[in-house]
Amino acid sequence: MRPSALRLGVIGLGRAFTLMLPTFLAEQRVRLVAACDPREAARERFTADFGAPAYAEVADMVRDPEVEVVYVASPHQFHAEHVELAAAAGKHVLVEKPMALSREECDSMLRACHAAGVVLVVGHCHSFDTPYLQTRKLIESGRFGDVRMIQALNYTDFLYRPRRPEELRTEDGGGVVFSQATHQVDVVRLLAGSSVIRVSSVLGRWDPERPTEGAYSALLWFQSGAFANLSYSGYGHFDSDEWCGGIGEMGQAKVPDSYGSARRRLQQIGSMKAEASLKANGTYGGSHYQAASQVPAHAHQHFGPVIVCCEHADLRPLPDKVIVYGDAKMSSIDLPLGPSPRFEVIDELEAAVRGERAPIHDGKWARDTLTVCLAMLQSAGSMEEISLS
Amino acid sequence: MRPSALRLGVIGLGRAFTLMLPTFLAEQRVRLVAACDPREAARERFTADFGAPAYAEVADMVRDPEVEVVYVASPHQFHAEHVELAAAAGKHVLVEKPMALSREECDSMLRACHAAGVVLVVGHCHSFDTPYLQTRKLIESGRFGDVRMIQALNYTDFLYRPRRPEELRTEDGGGVVFSQATHQVDVVRLLAGSSVIRVSSVLGRWDPERPTEGAYSALLWFQSGAFANLSYSGYGHFDSDEWCGGIGEMGQAKVPDSYGSARRRLQQIGSMKAEASLKANGTYGGSHYQAASQVPAHAHQHFGPVIVCCEHADLRPLPDKVIVYGDAKMSSIDLPLGPSPRFEVIDELEAAVRGERAPIHDGKWARDTLTVCLAMLQSAGSMEEISLS
Ligand SMILES: NC(=O)c1ccc[n+]([C@@H]2O[C@H](COP(=O)([O-])OP(=O)(O)OC[C@H]3O[C@@H](n4cnc5c(N)ncnc54)[C@H](O)[C@@H]3O)[C@@H](O)[C@H]2O)c1
Ligand SMILES: NC(=O)c1ccc[n+]([C@@H]2O[C@H](COP(=O)([O-])OP(=O)(O)OC[C@H]3O[C@@H](n4cnc5c(N)ncnc54)[C@H](O)[C@@H]3O)[C@@H](O)[C@H]2O)c1
Repeated sequence: MRPSALRLGVIGLGRAFTLMLPTFLAEQRVRLVAACDPREAARERFTADFGAPAYAEVADMVRDPEVEVVYVASPHQFHAEHVELAAAAGKHVLVEKPMALSREECDSMLRACHAAGVVLVVGHCHSFDTPYLQTRKLIESGRFGDVRMIQALNYTDFLYRPRRPEELRTEDGGGVVFSQATHQVDVVRLLAGSSVIRVSSVLGRWDPERPTEGAYSALLWFQSGAFANLSYSGYGHFDSDEWCGGIGEMGQAKVPDSYGSARRRLQQIGSMKAEASLKANGTYGGSHYQAASQVPAHAHQHFGPVIVCCEHADLRPLPDKVIVYGDAKMSSIDLPLGPSPRFEVIDELEAAVRGERAPIHDGKWARDTLTVCLAMLQSAGSMEEISLS
Repeated sequence: MRPSALRLGVIGLGRAFTLMLPTFLAEQRVRLVAACDPREAARERFTADFGAPAYAEVADMVRDPEVEVVYVASPHQFHAEHVELAAAAGKHVLVEKPMALSREECDSMLRACHAAGVVLVVGHCHSFDTPYLQTRKLIESGRFGDVRMIQALNYTDFLYRPRRPEELRTEDGGGVVFSQATHQVDVVRLLAGSSVIRVSSVLGRWDPERPTEGAYSALLWFQSGAFANLSYSGYGHFDSDEWCGGIGEMGQAKVPDSYGSARRRLQQIGSMKAEASLKANGTYGGSHYQAASQVPAHAHQHFGPVIVCCEHADLRPLPDKVIVYGDAKMSSIDLPLGPSPRFEVIDELEAAVRGERAPIHDGKWARDTLTVCLAMLQSAGSMEEISLS
């Protein structure tokens, strides 16, 4: 007998939800049964679309007996509070990355979920993407020897997408370390299969109108002796998807003539307030909201070019394949599309809730990723390396 | 009136000379008038090819009154001694990278050339390549704002090309830091236009049969506030020329079906001695020597993918163009081929010898590059960052 669908209640019907929605719609394994958002338009649309209640208050939603799992997709600064409310109500939790803004918050979330005996999964995060999970399996096969060096880079227009004011203030969780290094660090941690013991990092802040870090470079040292070299720029110039077969982060084929569109769009609006509305209007329930295409993506989602150097091969996860550059020959492993764009999140969440398999992306895992990201901020700020133990 | 050609005497008719030979043959501005090499076969061939004397002893060659400029292309460990002999004989010097193995050697070379009043140019090095020189000019135009972040990476089969024994021993100048970081650091220093003040680095050594470092990652901090992220692997797996339009280091179109050829060739020979002969036999005068093609290369030489993030554009030097990813639009500047493959070296050398223009790649410049490379070795060895002042 097919187990019944996970009954999901969503906190925050914004961009993260918009990006997960194609998955929720395509998956038989989940059903949207409630939502919560301060935006009335989003609540109305949710009720119209799903015939389910949409609450203005988190406390009310988590109490709804229909809700079995709470998907926390509110802004970073609310993750801890919302997870704890969900756990206190006895609900399993899927919380967006970054898990929270501090280790203390993470610890308290972990305690709350542990005390309530509920599952905590942190995602979506790009380390759920099939190219990285498959590369990790190839590594675990032992055929290529140990992982020695990992290179991960990503050049996007992140900083010029419409933002809420706090997304441009590092002290409130803004900038590319909290929002993008969480993906990249998670991906390299997964691939390295070892703990980060040392971090050296430097940040780039070069647009005074967007006064948070839009770029970084970092070296990470792992317990195993492996190391990783990370870099990121969200300044909207070079686009490294060129090195991923022209496939974008969401697995879509990139539109060739859209160069500079993010910056151009921003230039047309004047204030931070107008920008925040632009963001809200483009997400679920907003006046310019466009449902994500139901057309299957071209390929898997990804987070930019990654090369994993093992002793006897370089492994290169790409949106549609993993290329193995071995000692003697080069080969490649195709990665057929799954049942839905982010089915890997549902795989892990469902198995965890059913008690079948412990999640990779649990609270401790995500806390460790946040720890590395915080060390990157600290290392860059104090101009010194940070040891983690 | 056209100035007469520079009269060159070559010390070391090996691989470096083989790579410079197409330039010397194509250029009216230089003439080969003498050589010196312990290998008799190379001397015989030189005399046959150029009707010029080939000496067994450096001291004899530098004394030859026909010689005006000495090109030192002997192994690293002889650079200091050979440069000093040339200077003492009053000859200008072009010395291969790395300038030497220690700062002390560099200082003594600088003193010798200064005392003799002769010009010292260090190269060829890939920072002479037109794509980087042109990118530097674009930066100096000021149109794109300050340089903020530079990414340079290179994945080659360096470690599996036939080597002399000392090329596989770091303490004798072997490994990719001495031989390859010298190029990469030079390129990023040129592009940054500022001094390196801090270095954090980690080395990869993962083939016990080639027990020197074959890979590295490094962060460099510049006085200007810019930073660079470097990585290199010479382990012969992924080939980053894929990200340079399929154009190889020498500007040639890459042969698609040569995957793994360097490793395969090495596997057929048994000993370090056989390997050293294989190297010698493949260079000038050797039994398997093949003259470099006189067919013009497809494009300029280069040292792997490089992205320079300026405040208002990412600049991407490629073998045939520089792409400018600006705030509003993307454009590209074609780089027509020059009169010979490494004409830039002759440009700089000739102007320096004629007293027309001080060289960029003088002894102090190259000593600073070596200083950064030594700091990379030290940082990785002691597991700590190195401050340079
Ligand atoms: N995994 C991914 O691909 C991905 C993509 C985007 C965002 N995110 C993450 O999702 C989270 C939200 O970011 P976003 O870009 O969707 O922001 P957003 O502003 O688009 O969406 C946030 C939503 O939460 C609602 N909200 C605000 N305060 C609330 C509260 N107190 N209670 C309930 N709802 C509240 C807002 O009205 C909005 O609808 C962030 O943590 C971000 O890192 C993840
Ligand atoms: N710029 C470049 O692209 C490039 C490429 C290769 C090598 N190099 C540099 O050139 C130098 C030589 O390296 P190589 O790969 O050509 O080595 P190699 O072994 O191919 O050539 C060295 C040559 O010097 C000769 N030699 C050895 N000892 C000598 C001595 N005491 N006096 C005179 N000649 C002597 C050898 O017989 C040989 O012909 C190194 O410093 C290397 O870093 C530069």
